[in-house]
Amino acid sequence: MQLSKNNLQEKQNQLYDAIVIGGGAGGLSAGIYLQRYRLSSLIIDKGKARSFWMQELHNYLGLPPDTPGRVLLQRGKEHYDSLNGDFLNGFVEEVVDEGDTFTVRVKVGRQNSIEAVFRSKYLIAASGIIDYLPPLDDMRNVFDYAGYNLHVCMVCDGYEMIDKKCGFLAGSEAAIEEMVFNLSWFTPYITIFTHGVFTVSEPLKTKLREHGYPLVETPIKQFLGQNHLMTEVELADGSIIELETGLISMGSRYHNTYLKGINLELKGGNLVTDKMCRTSHPRIFAIGDLKVGLNQVIIAAGDGALAATAIWREIRRAAGAKPWVENLPAVSNG
Amino acid sequence: MQLSKNNLQEKQNQLYDAIVIGGGAGGLSAGIYLQRYRLSSLIIDKGKARSFWMQELHNYLGLPPDTPGRVLLQRGKEHYDSLNGDFLNGFVEEVVDEGDTFTVRVKVGRQNSIEAVFRSKYLIAASGIIDYLPPLDDMRNVFDYAGYNLHVCMVCDGYEMIDKKCGFLAGSEAAIEEMVFNLSWFTPYITIFTHGVFTVSEPLKTKLREHGYPLVETPIKQFLGQNHLMTEVELADGSIIELETGLISMGSRYHNTYLKGINLELKGGNLVTDKMCRTSHPRIFAIGDLKVGLNQVIIAAGDGALAATAIWREIRRAAGAKPWVENLPAVSNG
Repeated sequence: MQLSKNNLQEKQNQLYDAIVIGGGAGGLSAGIYLQRYRLSSLIIDKGKARSFWMQELHNYLGLPPDTPGRVLLQRGKEHYDSLNGDFLNGFVEEVVDEGDTFTVRVKVGRQNSIEAVFRSKYLIAASGIIDYLPPLDDMRNVFDYAGYNLHVCMVCDGYEMIDKKCGFLAGSEAAIEEMVFNLSWFTPYITIFTHGVFTVSEPLKTKLREHGYPLVETPIKQFLGQNHLMTEVELADGSIIELETGLISMGSRYHNTYLKGINLELKGGNLVTDKMCRTSHPRIFAIGDLKVGLNQVIIAAGDGALAATAIWREIRRAAGAKPWVENLPAVSNG
Repeated sequence: MQLSKNNLQEKQNQLYDAIVIGGGAGGLSAGIYLQRYRLSSLIIDKGKARSFWMQELHNYLGLPPDTPGRVLLQRGKEHYDSLNGDFLNGFVEEVVDEGDTFTVRVKVGRQNSIEAVFRSKYLIAASGIIDYLPPLDDMRNVFDYAGYNLHVCMVCDGYEMIDKKCGFLAGSEAAIEEMVFNLSWFTPYITIFTHGVFTVSEPLKTKLREHGYPLVETPIKQFLGQNHLMTEVELADGSIIELETGLISMGSRYHNTYLKGINLELKGGNLVTDKMCRTSHPRIFAIGDLKVGLNQVIIAAGDGALAATAIWREIRRAAGAKPWVENLPAVSNG
C-alpha cells in the first residue's frame, strides 16, 4: 500500500523482510521479486530516479525505443502495487545496523515533514546516482535540453551522436582523459568545454590539438535551440558555437549518505558486491548505479531479481519446509 | 537484415564483430547493444526460446504482468531489426576456434536444408535451455497445459501456486530432494509424481510421509482440464487425482552442443563466467540460462548488455581514438 503521513504508525511496528531504498528500475524490480517471493517489503523513494530524466530509453529489451524512462517507472510502480508492496515517498537519512535488524530513519514530506523509523531484516540499497549538470545562472536553460540531445551517458546515447558535432562538457581533466577518446568511437567532431572551472594541463592540450578537438575554456552563458533540441552554445564573451548534440561528463553524486555509519567495501565511490549483489555486509545488497559495474537500466532491473532471490533463499532456508498435514489436517493425502 | 537461403552468400565472406547464437531475451538484448555500439552482429536463432513458451511474464519490469513471452521476443526482434542487425533462422551445428576468429557452421532450412558458414571475432552463446516435459503418449496433451498452470520454473511461477494443490512432476530422486521442500514455501499441498520412470529410496519416502506429501509412482496417462487449465491427472490405472496447478522438474537440455570442440569451464552443465559474462575463453561469452546463475528473463536481458559492452570495449581500445582532422579536413576547428 501507499504509505503517507497518515498511515505510518502501524508500519513502524512491523519488521519487514526487506527495505528497498530507491524506487528506480532496480528498486522496483527488487520489490516485484520480493513480493512474489511472499516476503514483506517497503520501497522508500525520494523521487526522480536517474531514468526519470531519460526522454527515450533506447536499449531496454521489450520496450519500444522511444519509451520515456518515466513510463518504465510508472509501469513498475503499478506492478509492485498490484502485488501489495508498501511504498513510501520519503528521504532516507540514516540506516543503523542493530545486529539482526536494521532501523531506517526517514524524513517524510517536504513541508511540515515528520520523521519515521522502519525496521527490516535485510536492506537493498538502490538509490542510484544523479549527474552533475553545468552550473549555469539559469538552470531552467539546462533542463530544457538535458535528457533530449544533451546527454549524460555515452553507453546509452552514443548511437544517437554518431558523426554529429558534439559538445563535451567536462567537469575535470580526468573526465576529458577518460571519455573524449572513447567518445570519438561515435563521433570525432568533438569540442570540449571546461566552463572555466578547471585548467587543462599542457600535455593534454597538446594531445587534444593532435586529435583536432577544439578546447573552449571560456564559460558557457547559455544553450540555444528550440523544442528541446540544442543547436548552439553561447559563451560568456558572446561568441556562438554550433553543435548538434552534447555529452555532459561532470561527475555524479552517489545517493548513499545514509550508509555512512556502516563500514562497507567501496571501489571508486561504488559499493563492491558479489554476483548476487551482496555487499561486504551479509544483509545489505546494492543494485544498479550504486554498485561497481555498468550503469544501465536493464542491468539494474536484473540486479533487483538477484538481490531479492538471495534474500528469499536465506529466509526460506531458515523457515524450513512446510508440511501438508500441519496446514490442512482435515484433508486426506490421497 | 533478415538472412535467408537466397542472400547468404555475401554474408559468409564478412567478418562479423560478434555472432550471437540464440535469439531469445539474452541474445536480442546483446544484439541491440552490439548494433548501438556500431559493431556488426549476426543473431542465429533456431526458434522457440524458453520464454516463447511463457504465456505470461509475471516479473519483467516494464511489461504488464500478463504479457506473453512471445510478445517480448517479437518486440526485441523489431528493435534489433530497426538497428540493421543481421538475423538468420538456423541451427548452429559447430563452432571452430580458428585462433583470432571463429567459424560458425549453420544448417539453414528444415527441408532441403543447406549449410552456411559465418565468421566472427567474438561469440556470444545465448542459446539457453529447454525443459524436459513428461513423456506421455500424446504430447499434445502436455502442450495444452505446459506454460499455463503447469509450470516449469518455481521462481517465475511460485507466486501463482500459493496454497494450491500442486502436482510435482519429478524426473529423478534428486529433483524431489532439491525442489519439493523449497516449493512448500509457496504451497504445502504437494503430490509427487514419478511417472514410474525411477524409484524413490526408502529414506526419502519416509521424509515425504513425514511432511504429508503423497507419492504417486503409477505412470500418468493424461492431464485433464479445459481451456489450458489443468484440473486433474488421470493415471494409467484409471484413478484420478485432483490438482489446481503443477510444477515440472524433469531436468533441462542445454543448447550448447556446438561448443563441444572448445574446452570451456563448466559447473554442473552451466558455463562458468565472470561478471561481464565472459567464459574461460577470452572471446566467448555466455549469457542467460547457459551460464551459472539464476534462469530469469530480466537477468538474461541484462547479461546481453554486459557481454556486448565487454566486446565493444576491447574492439574500441584496439581501434584507438579517431581524430577530427582526418575525417573532416575542410572544416575549421573553431
